[in-house]
Amino acid sequence: MTDTDTDPPETSFLEVSDVVERAVAAAPRWRMLDPVTRAGILRAVADRLDGADDELVALAITESHLTETRLRGELFRTTFQLRFLAGVIEEGDYLQACVDTPDELWPPGARPDLRRFLRPLGPVVVFAASNFPFAFSVAGGDSASALAAGCPVVLKAHPGHRQLSARSGEIVCGALHDAGAPDGTFTVVEGDEAGRALITHPGISAVAFTGSAKVGRMLFDIAVGRPKPIPFYGELGSVNPVFVTMRAAAARLDEILSGYVASFTLGAGQFCTQPGVLLLPEGLLDRDRMRSLVGAQPATHLLNDRIDGTYQEGLEALRHRPTVELIAEGSRQPDGARTPTLLRTSVGGLVSDSEHLLAECFGPVSLIAEYDEEAQLIEVAEMLEGQLTATIHGELDDAVVPGLLDTLAEKAGRIIWNGWPTALAVTWAIQHGGPYPATTSPLHTSVGAAAIGRFLRPVAYQGVPDHLLPAALRDANRLHLPRRVDGQYRTGSPPA
Amino acid sequence: MTDTDTDPPETSFLEVSDVVERAVAAAPRWRMLDPVTRAGILRAVADRLDGADDELVALAITESHLTETRLRGELFRTTFQLRFLAGVIEEGDYLQACVDTPDELWPPGARPDLRRFLRPLGPVVVFAASNFPFAFSVAGGDSASALAAGCPVVLKAHPGHRQLSARSGEIVCGALHDAGAPDGTFTVVEGDEAGRALITHPGISAVAFTGSAKVGRMLFDIAVGRPKPIPFYGELGSVNPVFVTMRAAAARLDEILSGYVASFTLGAGQFCTQPGVLLLPEGLLDRDRMRSLVGAQPATHLLNDRIDGTYQEGLEALRHRPTVELIAEGSRQPDGARTPTLLRTSVGGLVSDSEHLLAECFGPVSLIAEYDEEAQLIEVAEMLEGQLTATIHGELDDAVVPGLLDTLAEKAGRIIWNGWPTALAVTWAIQHGGPYPATTSPLHTSVGAAAIGRFLRPVAYQGVPDHLLPAALRDANRLHLPRRVDGQYRTGSPPA
Repeated sequence: MTDTDTDPPETSFLEVSDVVERAVAAAPRWRMLDPVTRAGILRAVADRLDGADDELVALAITESHLTETRLRGELFRTTFQLRFLAGVIEEGDYLQACVDTPDELWPPGARPDLRRFLRPLGPVVVFAASNFPFAFSVAGGDSASALAAGCPVVLKAHPGHRQLSARSGEIVCGALHDAGAPDGTFTVVEGDEAGRALITHPGISAVAFTGSAKVGRMLFDIAVGRPKPIPFYGELGSVNPVFVTMRAAAARLDEILSGYVASFTLGAGQFCTQPGVLLLPEGLLDRDRMRSLVGAQPATHLLNDRIDGTYQEGLEALRHRPTVELIAEGSRQPDGARTPTLLRTSVGGLVSDSEHLLAECFGPVSLIAEYDEEAQLIEVAEMLEGQLTATIHGELDDAVVPGLLDTLAEKAGRIIWNGWPTALAVTWAIQHGGPYPATTSPLHTSVGAAAIGRFLRPVAYQGVPDHLLPAALRDANRLHLPRRVDGQYRTGSPPA
Repeated sequence: MTDTDTDPPETSFLEVSDVVERAVAAAPRWRMLDPVTRAGILRAVADRLDGADDELVALAITESHLTETRLRGELFRTTFQLRFLAGVIEEGDYLQACVDTPDELWPPGARPDLRRFLRPLGPVVVFAASNFPFAFSVAGGDSASALAAGCPVVLKAHPGHRQLSARSGEIVCGALHDAGAPDGTFTVVEGDEAGRALITHPGISAVAFTGSAKVGRMLFDIAVGRPKPIPFYGELGSVNPVFVTMRAAAARLDEILSGYVASFTLGAGQFCTQPGVLLLPEGLLDRDRMRSLVGAQPATHLLNDRIDGTYQEGLEALRHRPTVELIAEGSRQPDGARTPTLLRTSVGGLVSDSEHLLAECFGPVSLIAEYDEEAQLIEVAEMLEGQLTATIHGELDDAVVPGLLDTLAEKAGRIIWNGWPTALAVTWAIQHGGPYPATTSPLHTSVGAAAIGRFLRPVAYQGVPDHLLPAALRDANRLHLPRRVDGQYRTGSPPA
C-alpha cells in the first residue's frame, strides 16, 4: 500500500452529499438513454481505458506488486467485460420485457393490458476490491454492470491502489462525459468513512461490494439496517474446495497436483476463487515431491502491507491447528516477497476443526486433507458453508460423483469438473456468486451477463396508452427487444 | 377472530424443529422432480381445493366476515394461480437455462463449456396474510410459487382464520401426498413464536410474508440478522395514490368518483392495493354527493376484532389531523359492522403532514387531497415512499402525464391508467411489489409468473460431462426448455 503526499484526499461528508446529489440528478438522464446508446458509451469507456493501458499498468504495478503480464491481461479482461455487457444490453433480453394483451376470457376475470419490464434501481455504490485493481475495481464488473443497467455509480476506491483508482476514475469520467453521459454518472470517492456514509445516504439504491467477510458483513448490516433497507450485493469470499476421487488420483495424480499448486499460488493466492482445500485419497502424497513443486513457485509480494500482515496471522494460526502438518514451508524474504505454503491434515481433522480449516486464508497457502473412503467426500460437502466454487477431479463413471455433484450444487455457485476455479470466464452462462457467506445475496452473480440484473427492478403498466409507455413496451418495439407476448417468447428481430 | 376449543394448538419449538427437518429432508426429492411432474402435482392440489369449495368457503365465511361471492371468487383465483404457475414451470423459461459451448477464441482466454440454470433455494417459510384467506394464505401465491420453484413450504397460519388454515393445510398435504410429493413438502404451523423460530432455523432458506409494515420489518430484521442471512420477501403495504388530472376530472368526474368509492370500500377496504389517497382538482368536490355515494355502501364487518381495533385507532388519529376534514363519517353498528369513511385535505395539508396522511390505514377509509395546479401532482409523486401501485386518471394529451408517469415508475411497482388498483390479475406481466416500504425486496413480485424467481438461485457447471449434468442442461434437452445457447435464445420446441 502506498500512501504518499500525492494520494487523493479522503472524501468529506459534505462532498459525499454532493456526490450523491449529482448521482441522483444524473439518474433519470442516464436511465432514459436507450440501451444501444448506453452500450456505445460503455464501449467508449473501454476504448479510453485501452488507450491508456501503459500508464494504467505502470501505476498498477507500483501499487499492487502484481506482474505486468497479469495486469495487462486483467485490463484486457476489464475492457472486454465493458464491451460484453454493452452487447448484452443491446440484445435487450436483460429488460425482461413482457406484454399481456387484454383478454376478456382470462380467469378469474377479464385481464387488462399489462406490460412489464425492468427499470434501473437508481444510484449504486460500488466498493472496489484490492486484489483485482482493474477487473474488480474502478471500471470492474460491478461498475460495468450497474452502468449497463442504467444506474449511476459512486465508486468507493480501495486504499490499496489509490493513485490507480484516481487515474482510472478520471479516464472513466472523461470518457463518459465526452460520449454524452450526464454529469454525475460516475464518481470516485475515497475513505472508509465516506463509504459508510454513502451506504446510509437516502439517495443510494443499492450497494455492490467485493472484499472480506468481516467488512462485508459490517457494511451489509448497515445497508439492511437503514430506515429504508437497500439491496447489498457482497462477495465475501470462499475456500473453493477441490474433491479428487480415488480413480482420478490413480489415473493422473501428478497432473492434478501440478494444476493444484499452479492454481492455489496464482497471483500469490489472492483470488477469491483460490482453492483453499483439496481432498485427496490417503497414502498418495509424496511430501518431497510436493515440497519441490511448491518450492519451484516464485516468491511474490502480496498486494500491500496490510494484506501481508493479515496473511501472516492467518497462516500462523492455520499451521498450528492441532491436526495440521506442514508440508512445504513458505518464507518471507528480506524484500517482503513470499513463497507459498502447503499444509496437510486428515479428513477427520478437517471435519473436527472445520471452523478454522474450512475458513478462507487470503494468500499463497492451501491445505490438503487426506481421506480414507469416498463417502467422506459427501460428508465434507454436506458440512460446507456457501462457496463461490467447488471442484471435482473425477472419472466419468465414479460412483461418488452424482451424489457429490448434487450436494455441491446446494453449496456453491459454480461447479468445475477436472479444471481449476481460478479461471473465471466472462460469458452468458458464468455464475460468480453463491450462498452466504460466499455472498450476501444467493440469487445473483457479480460476473457475466446476469450481473446486470442486480440493479434492475420490475414495473408493470396497466392500461397505459401506447404513446405514454416506455419505448421498450410500445407496440412498435422500435428497440427490437425480445419480449414475452401473451406468454410466448418472441425474438426482437426487426419485422421482415 | 375466532378462538375456540377446536382451534389448532400453537406449534411448539420442538415441533418447529421437526417440521423443518422434514422440509429439509423433502427438499432434494421435491426439487428433483422435473417441472412437468411438479406441475401435475400443483394441478392435483388445485383440483382437491376446488373439490372442497363448499366446505372451505363456509369455514372462511365464519372466520373472515367476507362475503360468499367474494370468497368463491378468491378460491377460484387461488386454484387458477396454482394452475397458471404449473403452466409457467412447464414452459420452462423460469429456469433461465443457458449454455455456452467451449470457444478457443473467446477473449481474454479460451472459454470452457459453461452451463447455468436456476435451482430451488431450499425450504421456505410463508407467513399467511389475514385479508385474503385463500389467495394470500395457505395455498396462496407465496406457497404456490415456492412449491412451483421446487421448494418445500412451511406455512405459518394467520390467526385470523385458524380453522380454515388447518383444513386448507390438510387438503394441500393430502393432495401432495396422493400425487406423489415427498412427506414434508408442505406443513402448516401455528403461532407467532413458532413463526419467529422458523425464521432463525438454519434449515430455512427464505421467507415470504404479507402483512403489516411493523410486523414485516420486525421479521425482516430477524432474517437479515441471522448468522447466515436469508432473503426475506415481505409485502408490507401501500397507500396506492390516485392522481386525477384537471381534464380527466372535467370530462368524467362522476365516473371517477364512483369508481374510487367502489375501489376504496371493496372488501371493507382491506386490500393491500386499496387507494388510500386521491388527488383531485380543487373546487369540484360535491360534499353531499360524496356523502350519498359513500353512504350507499353496505356496512361490513372487518376481518376480525384485532383489525377492527387497529382500524378504529388509525381512523381516529387520521380524522383528527389538523388539515383533515370529515366528508362522510362511517359508523360502527351494534353488531360490529362498519360503514366507510371519506376524508378531505388540501395538497398543502397532504405535503406538510405526509408522515400521517400518506400512511396506510387498513380498512374502509380514504382521503381526497385537493390541488390547485397540476405541478403539485409531480410534487406529491416525488415525495412518495415506495408503493405497490400508483394510478393516473388522465386524458391522452395531458401535459402533466409523461412526467408524472416517469416519477411514479420510480416509486411504484404497478402504474394503472384510468382504472383502479384493487383489481390484480394473475398473468405473465403482472407486478405486485415495489420499493420499500411497499416491500422489503424491490427486485421481486409476489404475484404472477415472475413470483417463482424469488425462490431460485443460479448454479453454473463448468466442463461437466453431459451425463452428469442436470437434465435441464444436457445437450439432448429432453425437458424441451427454452435455453440461451452461445448468447442466442432458442425455444424449447422438440426438434422437428
